[in-house]
Amino acid sequence: MVQFRMDVSTARWLIFGPGVAGLCFVAFLVHRIMKNDEGSESVREIVGAIRSGARVFLHREYRILAIFTVVMVIVLVLLVEPRPWSGIAYLFGTVMSALAGFLGMAIATRANGRTTVAAERNWHEGLQVAFSAGGVMGFSVVSLGLIGVALTVIVTGDHYLALSFAFGSSAVALFLRVGGGIFTKCADVGADLVGKVENSIPEDDPRNAAVIADNVGDNVGDIAGMGSDLYESYVSSIAAAIVLGVAAYGTREGVLLPLVLAAVGILVSIVGALLVRPTHREDDFEKQVEGAQRSMNFGVYAANVLMIVVSFFLIRWMTGGLAVFWALLVGMLAGVGISAATEYYTSAAYKPTQEIARASTGGPALTIMQGFSLSMVSIVAPVVIVSAASLVAYAATGLFGIGMAALGLLVNLGVTLSMDCYGPISDNAAGIAEMAGLDHRVRERCEALDAVGNTTAALGKGFSIGSAALASLAWIATYFETAGIEVANLMYIEVLVGTLLGGMLPFLFSALAIGGVGRGAADVVTEVRRQFKEIPGLMAGSARPDYERCVDIATKRALREMIIPGLLVIVVPLALGYTLGPKAVAGLLVGALITGFMLATMMSNAGGAWDNAKKFVESGEVGGKNSEAHKATIVGDTVGDPFKDTAGPSLNILVKLVGKVAVIFAAGFTALIVF
Amino acid sequence: MVQFRMDVSTARWLIFGPGVAGLCFVAFLVHRIMKNDEGSESVREIVGAIRSGARVFLHREYRILAIFTVVMVIVLVLLVEPRPWSGIAYLFGTVMSALAGFLGMAIATRANGRTTVAAERNWHEGLQVAFSAGGVMGFSVVSLGLIGVALTVIVTGDHYLALSFAFGSSAVALFLRVGGGIFTKCADVGADLVGKVENSIPEDDPRNAAVIADNVGDNVGDIAGMGSDLYESYVSSIAAAIVLGVAAYGTREGVLLPLVLAAVGILVSIVGALLVRPTHREDDFEKQVEGAQRSMNFGVYAANVLMIVVSFFLIRWMTGGLAVFWALLVGMLAGVGISAATEYYTSAAYKPTQEIARASTGGPALTIMQGFSLSMVSIVAPVVIVSAASLVAYAATGLFGIGMAALGLLVNLGVTLSMDCYGPISDNAAGIAEMAGLDHRVRERCEALDAVGNTTAALGKGFSIGSAALASLAWIATYFETAGIEVANLMYIEVLVGTLLGGMLPFLFSALAIGGVGRGAADVVTEVRRQFKEIPGLMAGSARPDYERCVDIATKRALREMIIPGLLVIVVPLALGYTLGPKAVAGLLVGALITGFMLATMMSNAGGAWDNAKKFVESGEVGGKNSEAHKATIVGDTVGDPFKDTAGPSLNILVKLVGKVAVIFAAGFTALIVF
Repeated sequence: MVQFRMDVSTARWLIFGPGVAGLCFVAFLVHRIMKNDEGSESVREIVGAIRSGARVFLHREYRILAIFTVVMVIVLVLLVEPRPWSGIAYLFGTVMSALAGFLGMAIATRANGRTTVAAERNWHEGLQVAFSAGGVMGFSVVSLGLIGVALTVIVTGDHYLALSFAFGSSAVALFLRVGGGIFTKCADVGADLVGKVENSIPEDDPRNAAVIADNVGDNVGDIAGMGSDLYESYVSSIAAAIVLGVAAYGTREGVLLPLVLAAVGILVSIVGALLVRPTHREDDFEKQVEGAQRSMNFGVYAANVLMIVVSFFLIRWMTGGLAVFWALLVGMLAGVGISAATEYYTSAAYKPTQEIARASTGGPALTIMQGFSLSMVSIVAPVVIVSAASLVAYAATGLFGIGMAALGLLVNLGVTLSMDCYGPISDNAAGIAEMAGLDHRVRERCEALDAVGNTTAALGKGFSIGSAALASLAWIATYFETAGIEVANLMYIEVLVGTLLGGMLPFLFSALAIGGVGRGAADVVTEVRRQFKEIPGLMAGSARPDYERCVDIATKRALREMIIPGLLVIVVPLALGYTLGPKAVAGLLVGALITGFMLATMMSNAGGAWDNAKKFVESGEVGGKNSEAHKATIVGDTVGDPFKDTAGPSLNILVKLVGKVAVIFAAGFTALIVF
Repeated sequence: MVQFRMDVSTARWLIFGPGVAGLCFVAFLVHRIMKNDEGSESVREIVGAIRSGARVFLHREYRILAIFTVVMVIVLVLLVEPRPWSGIAYLFGTVMSALAGFLGMAIATRANGRTTVAAERNWHEGLQVAFSAGGVMGFSVVSLGLIGVALTVIVTGDHYLALSFAFGSSAVALFLRVGGGIFTKCADVGADLVGKVENSIPEDDPRNAAVIADNVGDNVGDIAGMGSDLYESYVSSIAAAIVLGVAAYGTREGVLLPLVLAAVGILVSIVGALLVRPTHREDDFEKQVEGAQRSMNFGVYAANVLMIVVSFFLIRWMTGGLAVFWALLVGMLAGVGISAATEYYTSAAYKPTQEIARASTGGPALTIMQGFSLSMVSIVAPVVIVSAASLVAYAATGLFGIGMAALGLLVNLGVTLSMDCYGPISDNAAGIAEMAGLDHRVRERCEALDAVGNTTAALGKGFSIGSAALASLAWIATYFETAGIEVANLMYIEVLVGTLLGGMLPFLFSALAIGGVGRGAADVVTEVRRQFKEIPGLMAGSARPDYERCVDIATKRALREMIIPGLLVIVVPLALGYTLGPKAVAGLLVGALITGFMLATMMSNAGGAWDNAKKFVESGEVGGKNSEAHKATIVGDTVGDPFKDTAGPSLNILVKLVGKVAVIFAAGFTALIVF
């Protein structure tokens, strides 16, 4: 048994200090964004439309979430021990997560126009505004997450409540990720299809009624959705590590190590974010993009190296050994490895994506076939890396090691999430430049800003997928711990059936999400066509389309289509637990992890590769723009949209959420039929 | 403990009698086919080209198979107990399986032209020839399978050798299914793409150099491939049932029950096949198709009902109880249920496929999206049915029940496989009619014959998928039995890692198969284009293309592309067994079953639905032929080709083959690293 060398009051300083520092950093970034000019009347009008659309969506979504939360809190307060604390911790988790999503989106819809205006003056200033806005999301998430878990555990003195807190954050993530993901892709695919079918309107053309909805989608799907998703991953990893830590060390102090390490991560992330300062200021795009890229990578790598050094000494000081350090390190390395693999399979700089582009000369069928084949191969590296990482982490320090490895992947989330959210904000800024009819150079600058974000986004996706898999393993271990199951033998028929039903869930869930996008996109297409037909002067540019209607249609569709997948994730584990019993649920969790992890990776990578194959062709390769190959890659890109931005990321939440439902309700599971 | 009421010598009569009767029925069918006229010079020339192409392919494939077999036999003779019998049984399994494949294909390539000629005279006679040829395949498979297993077990007196015999048949199935599947789709997709790209040549046009290769593909992929696949399923189910039966009953007589039931299945299948006699003889196609359909369904249902009745009394007489009967019955019902679900999701008569067709008005991206979404939903029913069936079968009579349920799905294979193979023979006949320039009505008649086969093919696919899943469960149980593992707890890290690696295999395997088709199709396209450019007078119809080159290209590609997936299936379980030990392999088998079963179902159904959505549009719906929707469904159909005919069915073999590798080598597995 390892002894902790730190007293609890010191640890409190070490935890809440960085948490509050993160919030101060957020305030600083908000100040830096808001001092920028809001721009001309036309920019303000467009930004206003986007902001109000986003507000409407979030408002309606939060209303549904509120109803769901009330029901869940009542259930937890009545049924789940310790009563009523489990319900209260759940509510707290939901509120903190919703707050992080709200904050990030509020600032993103204020920073997008300001980025356009700043980029009008100077490329470098545009980058600063957009990156600061990403930082608001990134550091809100980590600070509110850490403070929330730490308060829950320290105030109540019951470390198991960290699980209820994390469970609360999952519900928000599920709603925002699935709902936001469906919204954004209904609008995006719908707008693209009309653009293509009508054959004359470019992307982001203000005459297209779906164009505002498309931009709203960037905010609600890519920013709020991603933020709440990673908030959930972050909090879940910490919570699982705490429970496994206490099980391993047998003392309440086992709580402190994960919290202190997460806190250190916030500090080093702030350092990393401050190091992001591109040096090239003249208007040579390629050099600027390259310089900005280098500077961002530098920030991330610096944060990682710092984290390694600090955690080495901290862990040795706190535990007297390095076992925990190896587990944390292997998690960090796994993240880097999966990111590198993701980049290889999805970037136009490498063979796989280029092969998709080349196959496209034979038409869209080969684009799809090749994309599928490559995305299915692309799961091998992540699966092998996660397998190896869990073996090493387990060898280092048992199941707690798996929890620490999961935490290792996300310990620098502050800086990586800043970069993830930076991308969609730049994308929005480019759209605004187009819609406001600004000089073409402004749009180009904003697109260059967006290009900087593309590679770093691959980095973020790798971390997100890897952390979902490892966190899910950690929650499976937590389930065994809380359900008191000693043996879930694969030879038990109920365990086998559990794995089959669990494996089925991600397929069904993806089907519903992709189907929802297909149906919603069709609705949007119909509406845009109707407006072109019925609003006189719209095509000529003398009348304004009814943007609100498209936002409304996508909102309704998104909220309706997310209900069934959301319920499935909660109902299926419960139904199984109360009929075939807790061992069948253990099978369910493993089955869901296997197919969920692999389908998520496959769909994310397929979508990314199709997207970049299109860009590769547009850059003049394999026939260039408007060639047959280009048309084929557009088909691939459209198919990939709901794969990479709706179904794929939603599965990351699903695999953890089934684990949480199981953990929270484990005590009540009994087998009706005993085999 | 149940006592058997039948002495072994009676049982021998009951087993070998029907086995030999099946072979006599095959001889009768061959005679019925061969007495038909071979047709005109032009028909004979085309048939000759197809036959020689098929012979070349099979010859080269069997050469590779021979090398592989020699290596495997040496390994088994040297390493696997009982030596040298395990190697000999393996060899015997390989030879019998190769023989069944050879027989079926030899007759199919003689019956295709005769079907055309018979159809020239009379629709009804065409049906008889084609159905008889299907019957040759169907009854060769079951008779040689049953006789092979029974001889192995009875001559050696060691029931475990049934496993080695089944293992031998798997290797043939893998090579023929994967190799044949890649061959047929290279040729098919390649021929279609050129047809589309050159934009002027219809399907099966003799000027297209890939057209013979396409027809060869029907024989080597759809007939020999499917036959060897189902031979393997059949033998595997019997073998697993025997081993589990002996474990359950503890007596050597446990061997007899599965064998006798399989033998009864042959007899009732003969009755069913003889009942297939369409009554409408006048040339009203719709009535004929309907009548033929009804007659075929009648044959299958009659065989099933007979089987239920006979097995009820037989099992009660032999075991004194009905536990085994319930397990067999639940397997038969599961097959019917999965078939009904398959038909619902893939037939143009129902909503899902029609929805794909309707979505196609928005372009190919929506065709693909909708097809994916629906095919992912379509796994739910099979998974739930297999889960329910295994629970019931297990409740009835333990693990042996799962073996009997798997056997129940295939017990009437004789008649169902006859119908499965009937389809591609009619398809071939239609192609021959077109190439030989026969009257348009002949082609129409042959296509009507093909249409009859389409629904029954869905029936066959359902049985094939369901039996793969249940047989794989039975082999997992057999693995626990032979490896002597008592507990493979899901909480052991090596078991979890095993499930992840196992789950990865089907993705990688599918990727390689689909990628192989994509690459091969591109080769074929290049070659056909080259011939059009370089052979003077080809387009005008005055010169003949070089068909052999296309056959050669597809053959080389197929043989090359099947090596790595084939090795993977064998190497990965061995590598895992010798490093992380036997429990990790148990995880691997379950992981592979989960993703393999689901991906196979998804891909088969996606391919089937896209195919029929195209036919639905061609029948005049949603814009009809040459509309935008039609073009979009052609893209879907092409993408679906390797899904449904290469990757999907190959996965059915994969999930069982990993189980067999594990079972055969289980005794040697040890963990290098102990966690």
